[in-house]
Amino acid sequence: MAEKENNLMEKIVSLCKRRGFVFQGSEIYGGLAGTWDYGPLGVSLKNNIKNIWWKMFVDSRDDMFGLDAAILMSPKVWEASGHTETFSDPLVECTKCHHRFRSDQLDDQTKCPDCGGKLGESRQFNLMFQTQIGATEGSISYLRPETAGGIFVNFKNVVDSFHPKLPFGIGQIGKAFRNEIAPRDFIFRVRELEQMEVEYFVRPESWEGAFEEWRKGVHEFNKAVGIPAEHVHELEVGDGDRAHYSKRTIDFEFDFPFGRKELYGLAYRGDFDLSAHEKGSNQNLKYAAEGEEQFLPHVIEPSFGVDRTFLAVLTSAYTEDELGGEGRVYLKFHPRVAPVKAAVFPLLKNKPELVAKAREVYTNLKKEIPQIVWDDNGNIGKRYRRQDEIGTPWCITIDFDTLGENKELEGTVTVRDRDTGAQERMAIADLAGFIKKAL
Amino acid sequence: MAEKENNLMEKIVSLCKRRGFVFQGSEIYGGLAGTWDYGPLGVSLKNNIKNIWWKMFVDSRDDMFGLDAAILMSPKVWEASGHTETFSDPLVECTKCHHRFRSDQLDDQTKCPDCGGKLGESRQFNLMFQTQIGATEGSISYLRPETAGGIFVNFKNVVDSFHPKLPFGIGQIGKAFRNEIAPRDFIFRVRELEQMEVEYFVRPESWEGAFEEWRKGVHEFNKAVGIPAEHVHELEVGDGDRAHYSKRTIDFEFDFPFGRKELYGLAYRGDFDLSAHEKGSNQNLKYAAEGEEQFLPHVIEPSFGVDRTFLAVLTSAYTEDELGGEGRVYLKFHPRVAPVKAAVFPLLKNKPELVAKAREVYTNLKKEIPQIVWDDNGNIGKRYRRQDEIGTPWCITIDFDTLGENKELEGTVTVRDRDTGAQERMAIADLAGFIKKAL
Repeated sequence: MAEKENNLMEKIVSLCKRRGFVFQGSEIYGGLAGTWDYGPLGVSLKNNIKNIWWKMFVDSRDDMFGLDAAILMSPKVWEASGHTETFSDPLVECTKCHHRFRSDQLDDQTKCPDCGGKLGESRQFNLMFQTQIGATEGSISYLRPETAGGIFVNFKNVVDSFHPKLPFGIGQIGKAFRNEIAPRDFIFRVRELEQMEVEYFVRPESWEGAFEEWRKGVHEFNKAVGIPAEHVHELEVGDGDRAHYSKRTIDFEFDFPFGRKELYGLAYRGDFDLSAHEKGSNQNLKYAAEGEEQFLPHVIEPSFGVDRTFLAVLTSAYTEDELGGEGRVYLKFHPRVAPVKAAVFPLLKNKPELVAKAREVYTNLKKEIPQIVWDDNGNIGKRYRRQDEIGTPWCITIDFDTLGENKELEGTVTVRDRDTGAQERMAIADLAGFIKKAL
Repeated sequence: MAEKENNLMEKIVSLCKRRGFVFQGSEIYGGLAGTWDYGPLGVSLKNNIKNIWWKMFVDSRDDMFGLDAAILMSPKVWEASGHTETFSDPLVECTKCHHRFRSDQLDDQTKCPDCGGKLGESRQFNLMFQTQIGATEGSISYLRPETAGGIFVNFKNVVDSFHPKLPFGIGQIGKAFRNEIAPRDFIFRVRELEQMEVEYFVRPESWEGAFEEWRKGVHEFNKAVGIPAEHVHELEVGDGDRAHYSKRTIDFEFDFPFGRKELYGLAYRGDFDLSAHEKGSNQNLKYAAEGEEQFLPHVIEPSFGVDRTFLAVLTSAYTEDELGGEGRVYLKFHPRVAPVKAAVFPLLKNKPELVAKAREVYTNLKKEIPQIVWDDNGNIGKRYRRQDEIGTPWCITIDFDTLGENKELEGTVTVRDRDTGAQERMAIADLAGFIKKAL
């Protein structure tokens, strides 16, 4: 089983490189471990995922505020939050070959898995990337290890500018950095990641209802991006395993090819964060409605990884089947996330009248739906397979009937469905509406 | 004059904080110099700017490919590009108070501007942020000082995946980091910035035409985001001042309140970059069409700063005038970039029938145009002033006539124009179409 699943990941990684979804970071220089570059199709898929999240959880809601805080933050932020002291993994080094490992990931904690040499003492290795800021030696800053910190330090700014009523939330999409000892599993465990996080502020007595709403929100988001519900599992984190300030935490796990692993987290964090930053900054971060005594709101934190969502969407979409007696690979993306919504072809590329008409259809459609491509390479069968492999829901072919060879079909095109291979005839005027409806 | 302009910047910075556009980074911890956090309205404005750029220069074109490369890159990338050696500013330190300055920004290079003490020797200070990557001491990486590097190292990947014909380009939006000695002028000179860059690859003999097209493209973009043409000036960089590999470079300068400063750059860079990375990586980065000898394409680089565009849009929009005999401040944003497209009010908040109808109008409109807000705080005059100050193009008021008190006006609302203060009556059914047309 493990071999089959490794094989599946290999195929997915290979498809990602070959078709321009994801490349190894700094690849021509031998790569930089734990970093990945999103190619043309990858950036489209990723932007579609981020836009769905932002629209669902920020723009379409009255109780949510957007934010985009800096990656470089004052080191005091991470002292207050506890990251400077405790955001670390246990590290061991082989006394012989000097390779380094996360000791909690080793089966045998005495022997080096690479050379069999004796392993040294385990020590805590802080995962925050450190850098010197400004021209004065000793002024350090960290790359934020999570976007949440940027939200908490701006809680007061948002309250002062917008005077929101509780409950309300602040949402942010942005990069975070973790100096993983052993990055692995493609874009799953990386050193540079992207997060979509919300801190949702509530009255202490009403946290349970808000928690339940966000739990449902997570599933709605999965549905919207096309992650099948049957592969998402809620893990209630037990009393011993939760952070001490959390009364409830759910890990949302997904069946990745390499095992069931965390996709998202949802945690009730009490007033731990605002309280810590109040102490750390000596600022009053309390909230008070009219005629009320001031208090620290409590917080619900739904946290989504962009890269993990991308990988879950991708592995859910990856399908091998047979069509017309031949094996094929296709990505069964929901049209909302598909990097290309439709491809437009002329049936033959050496017939100027077909090409001209196809260009006209393409140009008009692209004005309304930018993620449309033109394809006239190879024969039509090859074009279908190529579009299948990148998950394009529809292929639109302009043929001689379109031009009126069959008068009854003049002004119509064939629209071929990715999943079934079935073709239907549709009026050119109906194409944009048909695609938009599916989005 | 200088005082008046300082005053204008102070007013803009103050408005940005008060109304939730931009906050000082890590503000509650005393701030981190050169970093800024975009608040709810700032992130909307910024996203609108980025989306316009991406749609104009990537999604709507057949010859462009999008990319999102990692911020952390192999240090070899910056050795090859020359950044490790030369991406630096001259730094001097006062021998008395130990304050540090960029010597090229001092009028008198012998005396400390702070304490009058003697300045030490000037030395080159590299602006790249350095960090240690992985658990092995001595493995360093830099935060990328520009997004362009990520594009060049992926040139081969894009060619191998998509086989594009020349000319074609790769576009990217992302963060870049520069350890400025003296960050200043609000979000103009910062340590963490965001760039929108294109590398446009051409046959060596056809660079002039492509350069001219991109020159026009820059002005089209300015028009689309509402930066007035009369405040943008092309500076042809002369023979002595251009990089040695560039045959033509234009700096697009803008009349900021603190002076005429660089907004964008457009440079013809020959094959300098691909050639340097070919040497550095030992990879063949040449291009060959069918039946052609392989060669290194030349490159045109249009480079846009997100934060500087944001600031140019903001300062262009900032307006003080009189309306109805009272002074007011408003932001004359083009509706396309305005963070809020329209605000919906009930005329009175204590009349449930008005509130219910207004809620209905608001909810339906927001489904079609997410950047719509609800506002029922204070009297209508205050709401207008508040929306003017954040640049909301239209205020929509639901009154008793809407409900049919005047039968002829039933189902209509007042739409008030931000710039003129003029109000017109419009059918509820026409609102979405009216706003969308203006976007």
